[in-house]
Amino acid sequence: MQPKGQQLIGQDAFFATGAAIHAINPATGEQLDPGYASGSSAEVERACGLAESASLEFRTLSPQLRAEFLDTIADQIEAIGDELIERGMLESGLPRARLEGERGRTCGQLRLFASVVRAGEWLDVRIDPALPERKPLPRVDLRQQHIALGPVVVFGASNFPLAFSVAGGDTASALAAGCPVIVKAHSAHPGTSELVGRAVQAAAKQCKMPEGVFSLLFGSGNDIGQALVSDPRVKAVGFTGSRRGGMALMATAQARPQPIPVYAEMSSINPVYLLPEALETRSQALAEGFIGSLAMGAGQFCTSPGLVIAVRSQALDDFVSAASKAITAVAAQTMLTPGIHSAYQQGVKALSENAGVRSLGNGVESEAPNQCQAALFTTSAEAFINDHNLQDEVFGSSSVVIECDDMAQLKRVTEKLEGQLTATIQMEEADTEQARSLLPTLEEKAGRILVNGWPTGVEVCHAMVHGGPFPATSDSRSTSVGSSAIHRFLRPVCYQNLPQALLPEALRDGNPLKVSQLVDGKRIV
Amino acid sequence: MQPKGQQLIGQDAFFATGAAIHAINPATGEQLDPGYASGSSAEVERACGLAESASLEFRTLSPQLRAEFLDTIADQIEAIGDELIERGMLESGLPRARLEGERGRTCGQLRLFASVVRAGEWLDVRIDPALPERKPLPRVDLRQQHIALGPVVVFGASNFPLAFSVAGGDTASALAAGCPVIVKAHSAHPGTSELVGRAVQAAAKQCKMPEGVFSLLFGSGNDIGQALVSDPRVKAVGFTGSRRGGMALMATAQARPQPIPVYAEMSSINPVYLLPEALETRSQALAEGFIGSLAMGAGQFCTSPGLVIAVRSQALDDFVSAASKAITAVAAQTMLTPGIHSAYQQGVKALSENAGVRSLGNGVESEAPNQCQAALFTTSAEAFINDHNLQDEVFGSSSVVIECDDMAQLKRVTEKLEGQLTATIQMEEADTEQARSLLPTLEEKAGRILVNGWPTGVEVCHAMVHGGPFPATSDSRSTSVGSSAIHRFLRPVCYQNLPQALLPEALRDGNPLKVSQLVDGKRIV
Repeated sequence: MQPKGQQLIGQDAFFATGAAIHAINPATGEQLDPGYASGSSAEVERACGLAESASLEFRTLSPQLRAEFLDTIADQIEAIGDELIERGMLESGLPRARLEGERGRTCGQLRLFASVVRAGEWLDVRIDPALPERKPLPRVDLRQQHIALGPVVVFGASNFPLAFSVAGGDTASALAAGCPVIVKAHSAHPGTSELVGRAVQAAAKQCKMPEGVFSLLFGSGNDIGQALVSDPRVKAVGFTGSRRGGMALMATAQARPQPIPVYAEMSSINPVYLLPEALETRSQALAEGFIGSLAMGAGQFCTSPGLVIAVRSQALDDFVSAASKAITAVAAQTMLTPGIHSAYQQGVKALSENAGVRSLGNGVESEAPNQCQAALFTTSAEAFINDHNLQDEVFGSSSVVIECDDMAQLKRVTEKLEGQLTATIQMEEADTEQARSLLPTLEEKAGRILVNGWPTGVEVCHAMVHGGPFPATSDSRSTSVGSSAIHRFLRPVCYQNLPQALLPEALRDGNPLKVSQLVDGKRIV
Repeated sequence: MQPKGQQLIGQDAFFATGAAIHAINPATGEQLDPGYASGSSAEVERACGLAESASLEFRTLSPQLRAEFLDTIADQIEAIGDELIERGMLESGLPRARLEGERGRTCGQLRLFASVVRAGEWLDVRIDPALPERKPLPRVDLRQQHIALGPVVVFGASNFPLAFSVAGGDTASALAAGCPVIVKAHSAHPGTSELVGRAVQAAAKQCKMPEGVFSLLFGSGNDIGQALVSDPRVKAVGFTGSRRGGMALMATAQARPQPIPVYAEMSSINPVYLLPEALETRSQALAEGFIGSLAMGAGQFCTSPGLVIAVRSQALDDFVSAASKAITAVAAQTMLTPGIHSAYQQGVKALSENAGVRSLGNGVESEAPNQCQAALFTTSAEAFINDHNLQDEVFGSSSVVIECDDMAQLKRVTEKLEGQLTATIQMEEADTEQARSLLPTLEEKAGRILVNGWPTGVEVCHAMVHGGPFPATSDSRSTSVGSSAIHRFLRPVCYQNLPQALLPEALRDGNPLKVSQLVDGKRIV
């Protein structure tokens, strides 16, 4: 299957008529065919209308059928075969192994959500049976479940053309919740998007889903995206991208006559703390691990370690010189888009020109287009505390080591941090008390706290939190990775005194769906 | 104990220095002493500073100790004795029995949240154990729990001077979650607020809570409230009141450098559907039940039935004439404040002057100050669909009967409705199919669906949802009544590969807190 340059609305595929978008092969700078004529308000209207009309049937589908749909999407993506990987490589500059791994993750994620839908925890079933004899007033029968919010708009991210894009985590969790999804494709990988979109479309057909459960629109600029977020039929938004882009969507969503939630994952610099004994014991290994994490995928991860924080010591000097040396061996890597490359260069330039910052070293340079040359800097805690610009995310393999005078200053740096997706502690047993004193602040700053690992590598599981306080995300009460992500697209409804025949199946006597329940506040499995 | 006119910050009680607020006895119009000198930015600063400093200790307190605090608040409120009821009657015009009932509900609610804190479901513990042998990559140990968001600002509501005010549902659920609370007292019942605030203060002292876990500020106008919502140390807001008030807080919260969630419960007209067979069988009883619900508490409930929707028939005519007759017997009742009374009169006047609306009758008139004279109107479905003003909440005992030509038109009316706290269906078995066809739309419009009851009367339990799509609330994903309300003030944190000594107690091996867990996606009790 080769991409054709078509928009997908329900089971239809067609050429729109606006200005054409072309992907750029970032490794060569060449323009890739086919072009994708931008959609217009007519396509927004059609996709939203179909999504709304599909909404009721889809959200009230039996969990079994919705799970099958998710499983089938995974099957259909795998069935595309190598053409998907090749197209992804052309459009993203990412290596084959990375995209094959990402495809595995994407399909695994869809199947995880299928199992989540079947297990039924997401329904959050609560039953408070009637107490007709209660004094002074009897209690009527009250039951609660969660239902889908309605149509969701998902913005594909550039840095995971499969796992955070057309059939990525946002789409999988929204579909799992029972929400129709309209994806606004990222213009950096339209062909990859179309191929995956056709797989979802085929799965919808195969599973006899109501038409409109999925659509995929292409458009240049922000017009289509803003129109989608403004449409009254859309009930929530999932986004992964820049802080500016996320905040623009938040503003649009709040300005609607009926405001809606926006789940925007935006900006994080992911501090790594090197505690004294860990530095003392393994400064060389830490330097290698750190540079490995920083170099991975040209640092184009939301969880790339953009900040290293430690107290000055001989061992820290050893770490710094080992890291400065290790970074010189980091090969140049093709970045995802010319825009990301240019933003990276600007970010690195701003750090280089900052009087409070000193360069520690760079990776290998390259003359090829859009190459990321890794960069490592250092600054004092004082300078970091006084210069908010040093908290700006530089998306790519750039990081800053902050040298603190003592633990008290290290804590002041921590308190100054904005919200983060992750915070990492490198420690030995002798560092336990220092780690313990840091933890409460880290809990308030980050969605995930790691010990003796590196923040890159986000496990898709039930306990994962890929989220965190603003600006890491727009809503710290949620995660965009892992099974908890389904809760973003659900809301509770209470049913008071409904006859059995009218109750949703999950709430009926005898627990026909065999889901865990909270009965009178007690958990029954 | 008599109120003194003091602000409460932490364990301090003192007189502020701004312009004085006096409660008005709405039954007489007379001004009540003491006056409450308005607080200023200095008090906001002090309360927020103390709340922040209390935050860590309070959120990491053992569930047992936090539960004791909640129980002790209930004990202390009861210990105030009759002076609380008498002060509440003076300030609100509400009758003794209602306030005694409300005190019972308030204390019951605090004790419910104590039991919720002890049970630990709110922690949402998830454990994905390490899989060191997994291929191609091992999985590290990942655990998740929920933690408190941080200091919460609560705005007391005028219509429940106990249950939705200083120690009402928002405060109880925020404290249960581990969030320090700063209450902005409602200026309609400052004395009642101070008495309850002193009870919370005494409980905090008795239970040795960190100072700042609770403060109570008084202030006229919006200055104090806006300053509290703008303060960077505040992490969430609970509000019950007008649509305009709620939306102003939402705008302030979104405009902060770090936006925060606002849980505003604002506006709902609570449609009641009378299905044909129910009308046929019991039009007289329905009329009496409806007028009883409408008249209760002068209609000053968020869930007062402001809309009755039915298909034209002889039985509907019978209902209408019975309701028109029953309303003439509704005694005038003192409304909560001159402001609410004046808004009610304006709302009723607007309906009276609306060309598409016809008056069906009124309750007993009274010359006494601030009296609610019940009012019943009727209009056609066509008129309702075409005039959005008819969806404006008229807070008080006013309701509109919408007569529809057929079920199809009744459904169009339903689709036009804004978000609601409740939707009620009056039905007999023969109405089942019609009810079934209505239900999906009602699920999308309302937080609670009732059959054969009346929406006034909100049970405080585990399955309750007192929430709903905008403008019923600012966030349909939550409830402000019932044990689920605790989730508004929590966020998930993931702990990756933490040594046992550093893990929060709830996540340690052996489940020391004995809470239910999701282990590898499976529920373990």
